[in-house]
Amino acid sequence: MTEFRPSADATLRQRAARVVPGAMWGHMNAARLPAAYPQYFRRAKGSRLWDVEGREYIDYMCSWGPMLLGYNDPDVNAAADEQRALGDIFNGPTERMVELAEEIVGTVVHADWAMFQKNGTDATTICAMTAREATGKRKLLVATGAYHGAVPWCNPYPNGATAEDRVHLIRYDYNDIASLERAAAEAGDDLAGIFVSAFKHDLGKTHVLPTQAFAKAARAICDRTGAALIVDDVRASLRLHMGGSWELVGVKPDLAAWSKSIANGYALAAVTGNDKFRDAATRIFVTGSFWYGAMSMAAGLATWRKMKAIDGIGIMQRMGQRLRDGIDAQAKAHGVKLQQSGPVQMPVILFDNDDNREKGWFFCTEALKRGVYLHATHTMFLSAAHTADDIDRTLEATDAALAEVARRFG
Amino acid sequence: MTEFRPSADATLRQRAARVVPGAMWGHMNAARLPAAYPQYFRRAKGSRLWDVEGREYIDYMCSWGPMLLGYNDPDVNAAADEQRALGDIFNGPTERMVELAEEIVGTVVHADWAMFQKNGTDATTICAMTAREATGKRKLLVATGAYHGAVPWCNPYPNGATAEDRVHLIRYDYNDIASLERAAAEAGDDLAGIFVSAFKHDLGKTHVLPTQAFAKAARAICDRTGAALIVDDVRASLRLHMGGSWELVGVKPDLAAWSKSIANGYALAAVTGNDKFRDAATRIFVTGSFWYGAMSMAAGLATWRKMKAIDGIGIMQRMGQRLRDGIDAQAKAHGVKLQQSGPVQMPVILFDNDDNREKGWFFCTEALKRGVYLHATHTMFLSAAHTADDIDRTLEATDAALAEVARRFG
Repeated sequence: MTEFRPSADATLRQRAARVVPGAMWGHMNAARLPAAYPQYFRRAKGSRLWDVEGREYIDYMCSWGPMLLGYNDPDVNAAADEQRALGDIFNGPTERMVELAEEIVGTVVHADWAMFQKNGTDATTICAMTAREATGKRKLLVATGAYHGAVPWCNPYPNGATAEDRVHLIRYDYNDIASLERAAAEAGDDLAGIFVSAFKHDLGKTHVLPTQAFAKAARAICDRTGAALIVDDVRASLRLHMGGSWELVGVKPDLAAWSKSIANGYALAAVTGNDKFRDAATRIFVTGSFWYGAMSMAAGLATWRKMKAIDGIGIMQRMGQRLRDGIDAQAKAHGVKLQQSGPVQMPVILFDNDDNREKGWFFCTEALKRGVYLHATHTMFLSAAHTADDIDRTLEATDAALAEVARRFG
Repeated sequence: MTEFRPSADATLRQRAARVVPGAMWGHMNAARLPAAYPQYFRRAKGSRLWDVEGREYIDYMCSWGPMLLGYNDPDVNAAADEQRALGDIFNGPTERMVELAEEIVGTVVHADWAMFQKNGTDATTICAMTAREATGKRKLLVATGAYHGAVPWCNPYPNGATAEDRVHLIRYDYNDIASLERAAAEAGDDLAGIFVSAFKHDLGKTHVLPTQAFAKAARAICDRTGAALIVDDVRASLRLHMGGSWELVGVKPDLAAWSKSIANGYALAAVTGNDKFRDAATRIFVTGSFWYGAMSMAAGLATWRKMKAIDGIGIMQRMGQRLRDGIDAQAKAHGVKLQQSGPVQMPVILFDNDDNREKGWFFCTEALKRGVYLHATHTMFLSAAHTADDIDRTLEATDAALAEVARRFG
């Protein structure tokens, strides 16, 4: 007779339930995932992740974005360590801050300047403050369903917020020029800025790149009114274009918010802007105790330089295309109808006639059992550490998972 | 004839002026300091700091708080490195998060739970959201002149903010029970919470501990109304009392915000709370890409454990008292009138009849020339790495600096 022993993951969840509200906060709460998904992880390297039970996964969440060159990249770690031997934070910044700002300004097409923070939310908040300070106006246009951070002014939830937190937001529909013009008209002469995600990547929805016509319309409204065109590049940072995601449609924003992948997992965020908004960015008082940390800036420098040196985006595109083509062929072969959308390096896979995402999560769970970590509703992420061998092993898992989907759902 | 060559610091400032708005943002902008103060630093160890010119300082800013055990503490770094060898961020947390929450809940007297973030502002914002979510009410009482973060809802500046950002704040005067009662009466039945700094540490003002009567009055208002008593312990974290700063007056808050020193310079913030507010903390959606970072949590664990093992607060108190007594004796000897206030481990030194802080900054500049880094208006910080020898060398510098003050200002 074997005594029942809870798994390492279950034991940690029980301990956490006592000392953490709801056992876990935010987007990494495994209570939002099927039961088979682990909550706790033990180690990671390159494209691979191991949970606390020792199970290995080829990972397509990349820590929900940050792991761009792969987990524990040796070049990024070496740069961080070299800096930490001198020190991380001081009573002021180090030369690394200047070097990183120069690197970014020299790479990001619209950028005349850069500032650094820790969270993506810090960066989007600074964009909002800069737009309001520059224009003396208050209204911000944001797309319906878009996510620009987890604080009351921009998060999509009522809990803990007041009506006044969002009183100056006006909604439009992404890629819908008429709705954007309507929102701008509603703002009237009080328009401070237009927020646009790099592309439409709403949770559980088809991912769509901006049309050039939409991007140009947004630019034209800002040119006409003096408002700031703000690209929220937090999720897409350095996966679509090193010069900023809207280079894909040839439109330059005034301000952009960056985070997640820009230092390959070291905590860093950035705001970039053009000279028109420099004075306003100087006048607002924004700061944080750790925003001057040189270790994450050294990691950031190493990340930007390595991404260029190895053409990291090209790698992700080739691997992402290999994955997309493979899954499309498998879906056809199994007679399963699904839509893959988003840039191949930031895909989402949505099954037809699956409003409650039952098929999606069943598919992901079957893949998970076979050592592949996918997500059924959120943007997934390739990294430059994913190899053709990783993709081919992944496709073995997805082939079997799609066979199970076909068997179960017909 | 020597060719003029700008200093390394001046060269970096010039480069930064091109690529960073105003050359530097926030509280570490040296434009706010006398010209002799360096903007850029190169390395640090223990209580010592070296600027990019190679000049060495005994440091009393500790990176504006975070350096608690001293720069580059080997035990904290070893814990961080051990974790990073496994990985820092993943698709979920690691066992370190549970251990750290357990460590904090076992140490902080009011805490039944903990959550982790990156910025002090993240923590104060979550306290505000939790208080509003728990009570269903909106008004927050904050002390006049208090600093609770650098975003529009709580920062003290108009730039980039709208009137609505602060429409639910009501001001009171710290330690003034009548003003607190008036503010609570103004909130009426819409009171969500009372924010109190660990002690009154406003910029350029005498630092004052809370009176027990004031602390009990704040607690009584919250008990009467169901509002949250929130201690902003970001600046004081782990320098006054390991169990939370208001243990000094024997009053338990419902929620507390922590950051700066809790991981000895690694980017970490925390919210602690009691069971009354656990459900509300569960219902709000708050998150950040790097809030799950295990490296900073491992550093945090090592920091809390080492602070207990070496009685870090006791060290800072003894060293701070030695500094205070020394400077008081020197001031008397030189006939210079000044007031040292705040806990000895978090002092501020204000000269009499010095409204524009000319004497203060002259004194600090004279100390700086002699290798001691002080600040004339902001809270300063001792660390557990400051030794009696550091203090005695510091006192040599302050003695000479006070002599200069006496000579110049009489």
